[in-house]
Amino acid sequence: MAKTITMSKTKIGSKINAKIGIFGATGAVGKEIIRVLHEKNFPMSRLRLFVSKKSAGKEAETEFGKLLLEDSEDADFGSIDLAFFAVSGEWSKKNAQKAVDAGCTVIDNSSAFRYDDNVPLVVPQINGDAVRGSKLISNPNCTTAIAALPLFEIYKKYGIRRVIVSTYQAASGAGSAGMDELKEQTAAVLVDKEAKKKVFQYQLAFNVIPHIDFFQENEYTKEEMKVVWETKKIFGDDKLKISCTAVRIPIFRVHCESISVETEKDVDIAELRNLLRNAEGIDVKDDTAENIYPMPLTATRKNNVEVGRIRKSLVFDKGVDFFVAGDQLLRGAALNAVEIAERIFGRE
Amino acid sequence: MAKTITMSKTKIGSKINAKIGIFGATGAVGKEIIRVLHEKNFPMSRLRLFVSKKSAGKEAETEFGKLLLEDSEDADFGSIDLAFFAVSGEWSKKNAQKAVDAGCTVIDNSSAFRYDDNVPLVVPQINGDAVRGSKLISNPNCTTAIAALPLFEIYKKYGIRRVIVSTYQAASGAGSAGMDELKEQTAAVLVDKEAKKKVFQYQLAFNVIPHIDFFQENEYTKEEMKVVWETKKIFGDDKLKISCTAVRIPIFRVHCESISVETEKDVDIAELRNLLRNAEGIDVKDDTAENIYPMPLTATRKNNVEVGRIRKSLVFDKGVDFFVAGDQLLRGAALNAVEIAERIFGRE
Repeated sequence: MAKTITMSKTKIGSKINAKIGIFGATGAVGKEIIRVLHEKNFPMSRLRLFVSKKSAGKEAETEFGKLLLEDSEDADFGSIDLAFFAVSGEWSKKNAQKAVDAGCTVIDNSSAFRYDDNVPLVVPQINGDAVRGSKLISNPNCTTAIAALPLFEIYKKYGIRRVIVSTYQAASGAGSAGMDELKEQTAAVLVDKEAKKKVFQYQLAFNVIPHIDFFQENEYTKEEMKVVWETKKIFGDDKLKISCTAVRIPIFRVHCESISVETEKDVDIAELRNLLRNAEGIDVKDDTAENIYPMPLTATRKNNVEVGRIRKSLVFDKGVDFFVAGDQLLRGAALNAVEIAERIFGRE
Repeated sequence: MAKTITMSKTKIGSKINAKIGIFGATGAVGKEIIRVLHEKNFPMSRLRLFVSKKSAGKEAETEFGKLLLEDSEDADFGSIDLAFFAVSGEWSKKNAQKAVDAGCTVIDNSSAFRYDDNVPLVVPQINGDAVRGSKLISNPNCTTAIAALPLFEIYKKYGIRRVIVSTYQAASGAGSAGMDELKEQTAAVLVDKEAKKKVFQYQLAFNVIPHIDFFQENEYTKEEMKVVWETKKIFGDDKLKISCTAVRIPIFRVHCESISVETEKDVDIAELRNLLRNAEGIDVKDDTAENIYPMPLTATRKNNVEVGRIRKSLVFDKGVDFFVAGDQLLRGAALNAVEIAERIFGRE
């Protein structure tokens, strides 16, 4: 029978030996968090999986073997050192304070606290120090996290005047249900059957939907404004000019982004390529003579964000254009969350 | 048995009673030209279809009934008043002068003559007068043609400082073979079989390929530079600052584009929407409260370009962002070509 797992062995010594809980453990992001913890051999004494009432009591096949799924409503946060929340913003809002009060540290993947001045919003490679002394940390939106890594390198070296982002976002942004819907719709369309929709506003198979999350008063979607608000907060620069057009396309789990930047200083393209090559979390895929550039095909299930098509801007006197592809469930969610946990435990 | 068609009746009087030839008549664009001529009840006394040697002698089912396919290498241009070239640039280069010398007017869909100062490059709604006195006219690149219509309205009313385009381009840009390959690859991937590729550089099914046409010395692709070069030529403004990132995505026949514009004058969004509503060739699809915006799903087989997501720029003091979806084979090719023919014959 499955059980909550108890591990006695840790790679980096017994002082880090946390009891970990994953909330939303059977969702697309939850599953990836389990996988990343396993891949990193994350030091923990116990891993518990929490899910909604209807799945509680069942078992899940995981990288750690079969594990029991517990009802998240019954969770005793006092018995958990670190909780990953990969659930809805509503659930996070209802439970984060309760968890923190019980002594649990929470890494929240929802947008519930991202814009709260008292809650750090962290991409470890950029503002990892912000985790210090905080019991509640927000994980950024996937689109933000993927673009932030290369953008921050440009920001530090050349300064940024303005950033224009157009995204090519995968079905996985809407979770497992989104990926399933794309698969089912595609199979239906190929045989001229009706593409049934539930998750997305319209048929996504062989279509493009320039609409993710709710429209705001300024006619930008919340997804687009997340990139604006969150990049400013992560960079600690409220004056940063950045805009986004967020577009859903029929691919499974990698977000791509076409990014144009006006810089303060002139960009030496070869120098920038080297800078990015040496940056943590980035794979430079930029050899056009060999047809090497970022693609979902190569970035799927990869921890690093692929960056390529790096070239001088044609419209700004000083500026650079580039293209990124990053696994939405990894760099854009689970991996970033686990890396935040590593910072908290002083592992990195 | 099929034959070259001879029509005695024309809608707009016998003075326009041209003998028309379509070269590349069984390709994706060629087929659409036939369809558009039929839909427009284009006045012609005869329609002849030309193809490569290997298909010559066969028949094609068309909107005009069964028609004979003739060998394009044997074409007597002197017997044709107007030829649509929907073939390769190489073929156009070899045959355009020959056709013109024989008294035939040529509308060429390839890029062979687009950058020739002596050959007009025409989007009829923008620079239709440029056809006057010319026996050889170039049809623009599809991505250029689709963006040009809304951009020109902005250009006339507000002035343009710079334009940044990111594209979402369909398989049809690579012709029928491209669409077939996407379909076959998708069916294969859905059942975990290998996606065979011949047309595109990589698997296109469930992938994104930021590479269309050859890379140039400046690291932009030729497809991207076509948008730059051609928009300048069509607008008659060599100083226009415009850049493009051209990206192939797994959809069939509509190109989308995310466009950011810095303008000279402040843009009143409601006024711009009205301006676009009254512009020829444009359908404003912009009611975010009702989830109405441009999409391939709605723009497929539609003559007009859909324009929406119109909103104030967040990065330029004066500027506007918008999104377009246009049928690559129609506005981006066949329809524009037939509209050029209408200008030549004074029909519009």
